This record gives sequence, C-alpha cells and structure tokens, in this order.
Amino acid sequence: MIKASICTIGDEILIGQIVDTNSSGIASALEATGIKVRRMVSLSDDRDDIIKTLEGELKESDLVVVTGGLGPTKDDITKPALAELSGSAGYVENMEQMEIVREILRSRGLDLLDINKAQAFVPDRCEVIPNRFGTAPIMVFRFPASRFGHTATLYAMPGVPHETMGMLPDVLKDIRSHFPLSEIHHRSIMVYGTAESALSKEIEPWENALPDGVHLAYLPNPLTGIRLRLSSYGGSEDVLNEEINKLKARLGSRIYSDEDDNLSRTVGRLLLQHGKTMSCAESCTGGEIAHLITSEAGSSGYFLGSVTSYAVSVKENVLGVNAETINKYGVVSSEVAAAMSEGVRKLTGSDYSVATTGLSGPGGDGINPVGTVWIGISGPNGTRTVTKQYHNDRKRNIQRFAATALDCLRLMILEDYPV
Amino acid sequence: MIKASICTIGDEILIGQIVDTNSSGIASALEATGIKVRRMVSLSDDRDDIIKTLEGELKESDLVVVTGGLGPTKDDITKPALAELSGSAGYVENMEQMEIVREILRSRGLDLLDINKAQAFVPDRCEVIPNRFGTAPIMVFRFPASRFGHTATLYAMPGVPHETMGMLPDVLKDIRSHFPLSEIHHRSIMVYGTAESALSKEIEPWENALPDGVHLAYLPNPLTGIRLRLSSYGGSEDVLNEEINKLKARLGSRIYSDEDDNLSRTVGRLLLQHGKTMSCAESCTGGEIAHLITSEAGSSGYFLGSVTSYAVSVKENVLGVNAETINKYGVVSSEVAAAMSEGVRKLTGSDYSVATTGLSGPGGDGINPVGTVWIGISGPNGTRTVTKQYHNDRKRNIQRFAATALDCLRLMILEDYPV
Repeated sequence: MIKASICTIGDEILIGQIVDTNSSGIASALEATGIKVRRMVSLSDDRDDIIKTLEGELKESDLVVVTGGLGPTKDDITKPALAELSGSAGYVENMEQMEIVREILRSRGLDLLDINKAQAFVPDRCEVIPNRFGTAPIMVFRFPASRFGHTATLYAMPGVPHETMGMLPDVLKDIRSHFPLSEIHHRSIMVYGTAESALSKEIEPWENALPDGVHLAYLPNPLTGIRLRLSSYGGSEDVLNEEINKLKARLGSRIYSDEDDNLSRTVGRLLLQHGKTMSCAESCTGGEIAHLITSEAGSSGYFLGSVTSYAVSVKENVLGVNAETINKYGVVSSEVAAAMSEGVRKLTGSDYSVATTGLSGPGGDGINPVGTVWIGISGPNGTRTVTKQYHNDRKRNIQRFAATALDCLRLMILEDYPV
Repeated sequence: MIKASICTIGDEILIGQIVDTNSSGIASALEATGIKVRRMVSLSDDRDDIIKTLEGELKESDLVVVTGGLGPTKDDITKPALAELSGSAGYVENMEQMEIVREILRSRGLDLLDINKAQAFVPDRCEVIPNRFGTAPIMVFRFPASRFGHTATLYAMPGVPHETMGMLPDVLKDIRSHFPLSEIHHRSIMVYGTAESALSKEIEPWENALPDGVHLAYLPNPLTGIRLRLSSYGGSEDVLNEEINKLKARLGSRIYSDEDDNLSRTVGRLLLQHGKTMSCAESCTGGEIAHLITSEAGSSGYFLGSVTSYAVSVKENVLGVNAETINKYGVVSSEVAAAMSEGVRKLTGSDYSVATTGLSGPGGDGINPVGTVWIGISGPNGTRTVTKQYHNDRKRNIQRFAATALDCLRLMILEDYPV
C-alpha cells in the first residue's frame, strides 16, 4: 500500500493560534484514494528543520504532501528550503502561473509588485501544477530511488485552506497517474433527523450483515446531519448500491440524498424541479438560513428573499405579526413561528416559506430554556410548526436550528409532491 | 528556551475522520507559559513507530506531550510502548486513580471489569498525575541527561478532548515547577482594507526596524482581513506596545483592533458604545452580514433586523427601491445600493444601515464582471456608496463582500464619533 506523510509548515499552528484543518482534509482524500497516511507533522518556519524533517519523511513514505509557508512575505521560507532539498540550481519562471498572478492582481485592481511576481518563480527541479485559486503554484518534486531508497514524490501546496482544498483534486489526479492504486469505492448517504447513537442502534442489523470488504463510517455535522460513508475495498460499486437500497427501505425520507450533499442544495433541487419559490423569516438563526440557501450557485432561481427580524418591531411592522399574538404567547412560540412564516410568504409572494424563533444562547428567556426553537413552515396547503430542543452553544445552535428548518421545509415539499 | 513537541496517537486523525483540536489547545497553553513548541506529530497506533518517533522527539525537545491511545481497548497501545521506551520492569497500581475508576463506573451504574481496572495500572518508571475527568491517568516519565543528551520529560495524557483540556492545568503546574521558563508575549493587530502584499510593502521599513527578538507574522482571512501577529521572545510586553503604537501611526483607521478580533464584534462594540442601532439589506451577500452580526452574543442590543432581497420584487416592494432606479442604473449600481440602505434604515428605524448588491458568481451580468460589489451605507449624516472588485469564487466573494460592508459601516461610525 502506498504510504504518505502530510507536513504543515507555519508558526501559527505551533503556537496554537489556528487549528490545522488542511491535514484532515488531505488525509481523508488520500484515504479515499487508497493511500495510507502514516504520519502528520507540523513544523515551524525554520529552514534547517524543514529540510531535515522532509528528508526523514521522504525516506519513510512514498509521497509527502506539504502545505504552508508559500506566501509572498518574508516569514514564508518553504520555497527556498525545497530548492535546497531538491538540489535546484536556481529559480525559473512558470509562465502559466505568472498569467494567473497577473489576472488575480488585475481583477482586484492592484499593482503587480516584485513580491507578487516572485510567486510564479519556482525551483528548477520541480514540475508545476498551476494554482487557479491563488498566486502560489503547486510544486511537484520527483526524487529517483537513488536518493531515498525508493522513488518518492513531494507535493508542496499553499496553506490557505480554500486554495489547498480547491487544488487537491489536481494533486490527486497527478497521484493517480503516477502510483499503482487498488480499487476503492465510496458512497455517502445523507441522513437528517436522528441522533448518531439512535441511528447506530436502528441500523445495527443492516450494519452487521454488510458483506466482507464493505465498511461503514459515521460523519456527523450540525449543518448536514449524519453522513454515512460506505466504502468497498476491492469490490465493485454494485455491492454498495445494493446495500444503499436496503438502507433506504429502512430509513425512508430521513435519507435526503445518496451522494455527498447538503440540505440547502436538496431543498433548491426540489423547488427547481417543481417550479416553486421560497422565502424565510429568521429570528434566532439571524440570517444563517438565507446564507445557506444563497451559498448555492443558481439559488436566485427559487429564492426570493428573507427578513431577519431580531427586533420585535420588525416582526410586527415588516412581517405583520400581530402584537397581541406576541404578548399572549411570547416571542418564542408556535403561534409566532406560524405568523412569521405566513407573513414572509405574503410579503415576498413565495410559494413556500420557513421561519425560526428561539433561543440560541447564551441564556434562556425565563420561560424556555436555551436551545429551544420553534419553526414555522408555510406552503400552498397550509402552515405547520415544529419545536426542537438543542444545547447550550450559540454557534452550534444557530447551525442546528437552520438545518432543522431546512429539513422541515424539505419534508413539506416532499409531502406536496410525493415521489 | 524550553522546547516542546506534541505527539498525537490514533488512526482516526490519520484517516481524516476527526480534526485534531487537542494539539492546538496544548500548543497555545505551552506558548503562553513561555515554551516554544517546535513540532507536532500525529502517528498511528503502531508500537514500533510510537517508540521510534518519541525517542526522536525526546532527543530534540526538553518536553514531549503525548495524547491518545490510552483507552481500554486493544487498539490502544501507547501504554505498553511507553513501558518499553522507559525500560519499565512491569506495571504498578496507582491507588488514587483506581479510586477514580471505581467512582466513574459506579456513577454510571456499570460493573467494574478487568479492562477498567487495568486503566489504573501504570509502568513502574513513571510518576502519576491522577485524571479527575476519566479513567486513564496522566503518566510522567523523567529521563536523565544520560539517556537523550539532556534531561527530558514526557507527559502522556488521554486524548478525549475534555479530559485533555481538563487536565492540562495540572500538567502545566508540573512543568512550571520543573523547568526554568523565559517570557514570551504575543499581540494581534487586525487590519482591514489593504491586500497582504501591499501591506507588506507599506510596513516594510517598520518591520525591518523591529528590535531583536520581536517577530512578525501575517495571517490573512477573507472575513477578518489581515491579522498581524507580533511576538516578543525574552523581552517585556512594553516593547510590543511601543511597536504597535508606531504601526498605528502608519496605518490609522485601517487597524480596527489591537487584539484578536473580528469586524462584526468591532462594529457591535462601536454601536453599543454610542447607543446606536443598525440594520442591513443584502442582495449578493444573501444573509451573511446578518449572520456574522448575530453570531455575536448580545447582538440583539444593537441589531434590529435585515432584509435579504434576492428578487427584484423584494427590492421594490419591501425595501422601496424605485423601479425606475433599477431600470435606469441596473441592479448592480451605486444608486440601487444607496436606495437599499436607505430603504432598510427607514423600514427598521435603525440609526445606521448597510446594503450590498453585486455579483458573487459564477458569471457576471453582461455589464459588470463577476466579483463586482456596490455597498451602500446610511447613517444620521447621510448615505454613501463604495464599489470593490474581487475574484470569481462564490463563497469567498460572499465573505469578502460582507466583511468589506462591515468595514465601511465601521468607518462611517468612526467618522461620526471621532476618537
């Protein structure tokens, strides 16, 4: 099995200022490609230590993925360290990356400085995968067996997470074309509305009967629910499809997708499919539902708009919620959630709408505990409300409230248009 | 300076199933104690690799903090590996930890099994810090100078985050009583409105004149701008304050905070300070500004609400933007941004408001390129608009548009209430 090391360079990780999420993202992608990650290392911007560590990893691993330390400023010294490690005689310009650097600066209306140009120069012993997301290219160093006892490849990637993750598919493509890899298939099944432990108990008989070589992993996330990753090592994809069909028979509409997906995309797909529109009214989610919906390209095809009504006056004057309803039942109530969803549906003229009112924290309101949410959903066939009780963490609660609201909307649309 | 390594043991990190947050927490605590973390390593549950790696780290570092692999199940092999590394002859029972193990099982209504009892047995060459949060004690191995060329200490901690973080103060206390520690100070300076490369050029004279032992690092982020981290090794905090004052004189209001901060918190602080309120109208940012503002606890004290106007009809009917203005200037224009911010200010009755209209992508509108945004800001002294041009990544553009809008609002409030 091909073995890999992941090395992260940068003092900000070593002083604990940022959590390294790149390594985890790279590791799971390598794992899914059939490569064993044997080690992760974070080290500081120290030239000698970088060279010594990378040499050590290249001796033990077939491939080493390095991130970080490729920025234009003085504290970024990965490139000179790699030039030395590879025995490069100097730096050469990569024309393709230089064009990207020019374009990025032009599009931002910035002058092209020498330190920007320097980004497109690389050690002469490396191959380049141009970076479409930033100025620092991916550098690929291929070492012959004479150097470390076996052929070894080093990929140096920028450490800005969206550049690292954005360019990872290109690196994986290069890896697949250079290394012999065994067959692995993965499928994701997205489940919402059941806690991990309850789901685990419910599907235990199915899990225990999985054929040899098929493995299940749980990947819970407050925004997307539980992703079940089913992996087949050495087998065909048909085996996975068969197992997924069995699982669908068990879980029904709690499975919202049989690929890696999220709730806002699923709701958008349903709305487009039936030519319908939506809007939302947010109190405790404070804009998160609208943000999730509009993070998807093409959402202007079904999303009309939303109102974030933090102040009671906005609930009354913009959404038309009756002052009496608020006084009688309280802001966090089924009645106010229903009135908010009906109000925003009328205001925007959308087919469907969803509304939230609750307590994301810190602290309850003296009546309801922190973590309480009321969700209102309105559509052509009426309005309903749902309540849930979550925990104590503000950011997590906002995410869970928003995801649950999107799931309630999804279920209402599914009822109106049964498959 | 005392040097440390942090080692994490466990396959779940190497396959990318979980993100390692312990290392970051330990690193920032060590850093604050005046210890330099020179390396972090994650390795798998492989006995030989554990021993070889830990020996390597003990040679280079004064102290090594190990987490993980101390559970009761078969795949947890850190303890036998440490017994071998330390040359222990066998295992001895730690009475204090045994009592904790008994109490934990009793409180959960579980039987005390042999595998539970085994948790309180430790290699005979270690000292124990009892773990109040779980069954596996912290093991402290002190190696004489004859072993690794200098005295070296290894702390083995459980890897369950709440146990690791819960017991960290006890480990730090032991470290402080055994090592001579020097002083380290860090400060963050938050800058918005200048690209990293341009900022680097602008402050180069200041950076080059920094006193010995003071280091600068750039940490750019689309939501918070550029965080400049200034670190002083061995010097006093006064040195940093002096340098920050010099930088403030150069950069003026582009510095929005001299501690680790973000723009929504800064805007909130300014509004609270002057007893003012805000609202927003979002087109291309689709709820992100409201989400950022309401992610801060206490935001109901100054945030009244917002309208996300994705559809033109919502811009006209809810925000009261004139249909003629839209027809004449186009949706993405200074005039529409101004009308949106004025509309939402009137609708909610807020003191200030900010609005966005632009093209987050993919694709432009035939007139403006993707990445164009117009921002409108309104307050008691009038309305102004600003335009910016960013890149073509939808999610990044939404973040940059939202951050820039918050920064524009911040600058307007600062003008109305000069410091």
